[in-house]
Amino acid sequence: MNETDLITKLTAGLPANDSVHTGPGDDCAVLKFGDQTLLFKTDAIVEGIHFERDTPPEKIGRKALARTLSDIAAMAGTPTHALVTLGRCEDHDPEHLMHIYDGLKSLALEHSVNIVGGEITTLPKLTLSISLIGTVEQPVLRSGSQMGDAIFVSGELGGSLADHHLTFQPRLTEARWLVSHFEVHAMIDLSDGLATDLRHLLNEHTGAELRSPAVPISRAAKLAAKENPSSKTALLAALTDGEDYELLFTVSPKTAVAVLDGWKAQFPDTPLHCIGKITDTPGITLRDDKGARTLTLHGYDHLN
Amino acid sequence: MNETDLITKLTAGLPANDSVHTGPGDDCAVLKFGDQTLLFKTDAIVEGIHFERDTPPEKIGRKALARTLSDIAAMAGTPTHALVTLGRCEDHDPEHLMHIYDGLKSLALEHSVNIVGGEITTLPKLTLSISLIGTVEQPVLRSGSQMGDAIFVSGELGGSLADHHLTFQPRLTEARWLVSHFEVHAMIDLSDGLATDLRHLLNEHTGAELRSPAVPISRAAKLAAKENPSSKTALLAALTDGEDYELLFTVSPKTAVAVLDGWKAQFPDTPLHCIGKITDTPGITLRDDKGARTLTLHGYDHLN
Repeated sequence: MNETDLITKLTAGLPANDSVHTGPGDDCAVLKFGDQTLLFKTDAIVEGIHFERDTPPEKIGRKALARTLSDIAAMAGTPTHALVTLGRCEDHDPEHLMHIYDGLKSLALEHSVNIVGGEITTLPKLTLSISLIGTVEQPVLRSGSQMGDAIFVSGELGGSLADHHLTFQPRLTEARWLVSHFEVHAMIDLSDGLATDLRHLLNEHTGAELRSPAVPISRAAKLAAKENPSSKTALLAALTDGEDYELLFTVSPKTAVAVLDGWKAQFPDTPLHCIGKITDTPGITLRDDKGARTLTLHGYDHLN
Repeated sequence: MNETDLITKLTAGLPANDSVHTGPGDDCAVLKFGDQTLLFKTDAIVEGIHFERDTPPEKIGRKALARTLSDIAAMAGTPTHALVTLGRCEDHDPEHLMHIYDGLKSLALEHSVNIVGGEITTLPKLTLSISLIGTVEQPVLRSGSQMGDAIFVSGELGGSLADHHLTFQPRLTEARWLVSHFEVHAMIDLSDGLATDLRHLLNEHTGAELRSPAVPISRAAKLAAKENPSSKTALLAALTDGEDYELLFTVSPKTAVAVLDGWKAQFPDTPLHCIGKITDTPGITLRDDKGARTLTLHGYDHLN
């Protein structure tokens, strides 16, 4: 049983009443409390998977919170309150833990997030889990994309493990600006790679056609491909590497130019690219001058 | 550096604004969202610490949620929404995980808690962390006890590891009933043992005087003391064993009799005992016919 099947089985028949606007399966849960709409999210990072033993501790703390903030951004929300669960070995150096918290606190201050508690427990591997509450006016779900929508991605993609995964800025401001100026149909943050995460914006009746020259490739991905020609190409890295934490969203093609112009004026230092459109052909097609290929989770299926 | 010192150091200077009614250091964080008062709590259980490899999986899932519900009970709240973080070894049997979720879902249904998501991550030891949101009319904090207050405890104490720690009922109904009928000054749920947790209701100017014959001792604690006379006495087990998950609270001595009578009528199957009073002598004194002793975290200091 793979992870997706397992999660589907585990979460089948979960209790939920009218207060649950959106349950499992989106970037955050969306909850109704009186006239308030809240976002609720939890995310854990583990030594050896999301960071290494020698990763600077401030960056470990920063990353744990930043990932969760990125999920709030993906729904155009505002993070407000966090709890921190720290799992550590019994002999873990207290100084190291304090530096982890320093990184965490510093990013929390930057985004006006209140850290309101948590706990320390004993685990064989350093683990940092963040529970986050946020507020939102009108949440943008993954499920709202429409036929013909223009697909946009912020930033540049690929090669995140070189550095970006520890230093990225969650796109909170950008997402809220977007939603306050345009009707965003669907949005997600890129954590598992474009080829995987874009599928979450599709359903059994829709697909995506991407123009490969339009996919923004990071300098790190280009450098890695150049230094190691036997590894995947820079384009494939941009399409399949994880941990970009950029925004991927769709809008009506009628507003696409206004989105591009508005973004450029508002965020001149952050690229935004229109990389393709939503179609009625299920799956993801990658098109360039030479033809079309099907994009799988980790590569290309065939040339048409 | 011990755990308490470490937590104090880590949580020093945490960012918090006016929306934070109560931050770290109580059973839950208390947050203001418009006219809503919310409780926010996270709690993790780990294999080898809170349960064993051969603990029935339904009971593992149940315990994880029940502990967190008990923290909501300690503030007289109502749990509403939960996220589940499951850390498991890669080769962990999916059936086992599904049984863990069965135990969790079943208790969630019992208390009308919506499970709205979570995640699965890879960890060397099975770990289950619950994030919980709840609502509350008027939260009861740990800090409100007053000189002369009567100290009450629900249920019977000690010997929880024999079974109770996996099967206890969080005292949600009882706590809300209490607060809707009486002015409860301070409350906590017993997780680390009376001798430890009672201290959280005291400050540098107050202490507690307990009457040892009034401390309710569980059948399991009596049985363990009888079967193994070289281990701690049943009374000491009741005072220092952890994981009772009973309510410990204080009210004005004027309302003590009404509390006892009302509780007995409302919850005839759940004992409630007045075990002592809040005094102006810091620390915990244990008094019986023979005299007085000071109660430390794990035993008695001396006979006066």
